[in-house]
Amino acid sequence: MLFSRGFRRIPTTTFNGFSRWFVSHRPGYSQSQTTTHCSRDSTHKIFGGFEESRFWGFAGSRYQIHHQSSSLVEEELDPFSLVADELSLVANRLRDMVVAEVPKLASAAEYFFKMGVEGKRFRPTVLLLMATALNVKVPEPAKALADTLTPELRTRQQSVAEITEMIHVASLLHDDVLDDAETRRGVGSLNCIMGNKVSVLAGDFLLSRACVALAALKNTEVVTLLATVLEQLVTGETMQMTCTSEQRCSMEYYMQKTYYKTASLISNSCKSVAVIAGQTTEVAMLAFEYGKNLGLAYQLIDDILDFTGTSASLGKGSLSDIRHGIVTAPLLYAMEEFPQLRAVVEQGFENPKNVDIALDYLGKSRGIQKARELAIKHANLAAEAIESLPESDDEDVKRSRRALVDLTQRVVTRTK
Amino acid sequence: MLFSRGFRRIPTTTFNGFSRWFVSHRPGYSQSQTTTHCSRDSTHKIFGGFEESRFWGFAGSRYQIHHQSSSLVEEELDPFSLVADELSLVANRLRDMVVAEVPKLASAAEYFFKMGVEGKRFRPTVLLLMATALNVKVPEPAKALADTLTPELRTRQQSVAEITEMIHVASLLHDDVLDDAETRRGVGSLNCIMGNKVSVLAGDFLLSRACVALAALKNTEVVTLLATVLEQLVTGETMQMTCTSEQRCSMEYYMQKTYYKTASLISNSCKSVAVIAGQTTEVAMLAFEYGKNLGLAYQLIDDILDFTGTSASLGKGSLSDIRHGIVTAPLLYAMEEFPQLRAVVEQGFENPKNVDIALDYLGKSRGIQKARELAIKHANLAAEAIESLPESDDEDVKRSRRALVDLTQRVVTRTK
Repeated sequence: MLFSRGFRRIPTTTFNGFSRWFVSHRPGYSQSQTTTHCSRDSTHKIFGGFEESRFWGFAGSRYQIHHQSSSLVEEELDPFSLVADELSLVANRLRDMVVAEVPKLASAAEYFFKMGVEGKRFRPTVLLLMATALNVKVPEPAKALADTLTPELRTRQQSVAEITEMIHVASLLHDDVLDDAETRRGVGSLNCIMGNKVSVLAGDFLLSRACVALAALKNTEVVTLLATVLEQLVTGETMQMTCTSEQRCSMEYYMQKTYYKTASLISNSCKSVAVIAGQTTEVAMLAFEYGKNLGLAYQLIDDILDFTGTSASLGKGSLSDIRHGIVTAPLLYAMEEFPQLRAVVEQGFENPKNVDIALDYLGKSRGIQKARELAIKHANLAAEAIESLPESDDEDVKRSRRALVDLTQRVVTRTK
Repeated sequence: MLFSRGFRRIPTTTFNGFSRWFVSHRPGYSQSQTTTHCSRDSTHKIFGGFEESRFWGFAGSRYQIHHQSSSLVEEELDPFSLVADELSLVANRLRDMVVAEVPKLASAAEYFFKMGVEGKRFRPTVLLLMATALNVKVPEPAKALADTLTPELRTRQQSVAEITEMIHVASLLHDDVLDDAETRRGVGSLNCIMGNKVSVLAGDFLLSRACVALAALKNTEVVTLLATVLEQLVTGETMQMTCTSEQRCSMEYYMQKTYYKTASLISNSCKSVAVIAGQTTEVAMLAFEYGKNLGLAYQLIDDILDFTGTSASLGKGSLSDIRHGIVTAPLLYAMEEFPQLRAVVEQGFENPKNVDIALDYLGKSRGIQKARELAIKHANLAAEAIESLPESDDEDVKRSRRALVDLTQRVVTRTK
């Protein structure tokens, strides 16, 4: 629940320790190098997990923001606190939109807001930080264009965050129908409680709201970027539902699917934040690269946690991927070491014995470790994108960029 | 199946007979006037039903267009033949888009193209005719803007037709999940054959494709118009799924819901065809009014046919609305005459006896007749919108306008 409802003050020394390692290894990064320095155990020893506070949560008062007095150093370390007020604004606007105008979809809205999904807070946080991080001089003609548009730039960037969140939750709702998911992250899935109908309709509702908000931005490039996301979300789902045995065992296919299903949304919305600000193509591409690599790192860790859960032991996760026959990075790497595992994968996992056999191979292999290394590689690439942005002396800009880099670290060290 | 796959040469005399009546009664139209002249029986005596040919249909060759040599008079009478080649182009492009790029959704595509739904052909026909009907001088600044855009105007208008069709079919697919529909117009519904998953995913796929095509038009007003449609489709569905007893018995609520569920798509896409051509606000509004009123007329007849079917007798239709507890115009009018019917409606129709009682009241009332009169009123309003367009001497323009007026008549006289 790292990104969901709270933040925990990470000791500065720990942060700096990681940061130093992180920076020093990035330039000459390769998978094997990272392996040496950042095996699962070592990262865990250094950084540990994260606790969540009750900072987030809609159940109580609308402006329930409990700012703790914090030193500048602390602020710098917490990406969430930097944009807390604004996140609250975005979240309330989303809630009002769903509850007030279509009271009958209130049940869906409740689900939307109650479920403690980290993803919900993660995306707007990234996008608001990105908006500040890119608050640098833009070429004159583009700036002139951006300035003529109302509402003001920041409001339109907040709108991108809202649209992104609506698309994300809509995709969760429809995925629930597709997956026959009984629970999603511990909260009963909506389709389980209300039936498929409400899941489909609530998803469509959010998607249509997203389209209306997108249209209101009156920026054809942003419309294209986010329309592409919708298409790629479906393509990713299709790739997962209908792959051949060959594709199911292909790392390339897995990464492509992962990009479509998870990273496309955050990469294209990061780029949208840049485009709306009238930034150059180069800056927009760096924003895109940040989102893409952060999203890929996030999903790779998710895939690992599905095996390990909050503990470090194999098989303690929900094992929901493997039980649904979804083969992810750890198992794909294990298959490279133990080709005989492929026959098991091809038989499928309806028989629980096959799950045990696969876990056995996975435990003997470096699968988990290599998947983590790949996540770290992408986290590093994300951080590099931020560091390649045009220099700025503005303290807010610099702080937001540090927070974005900090997020790349949190993504790969989270334990739940 | 009037609009689906074929056209039939309607005797000119019959057409002219209707046309004369139609025009002569429109200016002073009121419900009671129309009742006298156009009761269900009389319209049927004059115009009869329509047969379908095998003109449409994707099963065979891709360019399966069997043009019969036809006189100008015949061409004028058949809205479908006027745009036949272009419709074929649009339909093939849609099919290629679905089948070629996502082969795994081929099953959904098959459903998409095989099912003999008139609606599928109806909307593109209207939009292509509208494109020609509006082919008149546009104000210079707007025209200059329209001319600078590529691809050329007609191609972009065809794209509006494709987008409209994709949104329409997507909404059918998701409605199938919402309705638990076992059959849709005689063809097994996709979710029945393939399960909810494919229905949801295929619907999402078409929606996302529609969004991408919409973005490619690079016209923010059109994006807004069609995003509004998506929102209203959901609102209409929500209104139907969750109404109070009071709302269920309200004619106003029914008409609003009908607009959202049926007429919003065609009205906004007609307007989009005008906007893309750089037409004035006035012309764009007339296009909108045509679509709105045609859509409402269409749905009112649909509601009648649900009671009568192809015969003229009550209870011969599928009765699917009433069995799903959906109260439509005929019953709402019957309730005005027989207030005691309301208690039956409030009890619901899970008990088949209540269906019989309601049908009994409906038969004694003028419900069917008044619903038909309302449909005719809206058909007249649609025709008026076309006749209010700026004059044109262009033969193509005049022919397309006649065809659009002809469609308003076909909509209210169809028997299936």
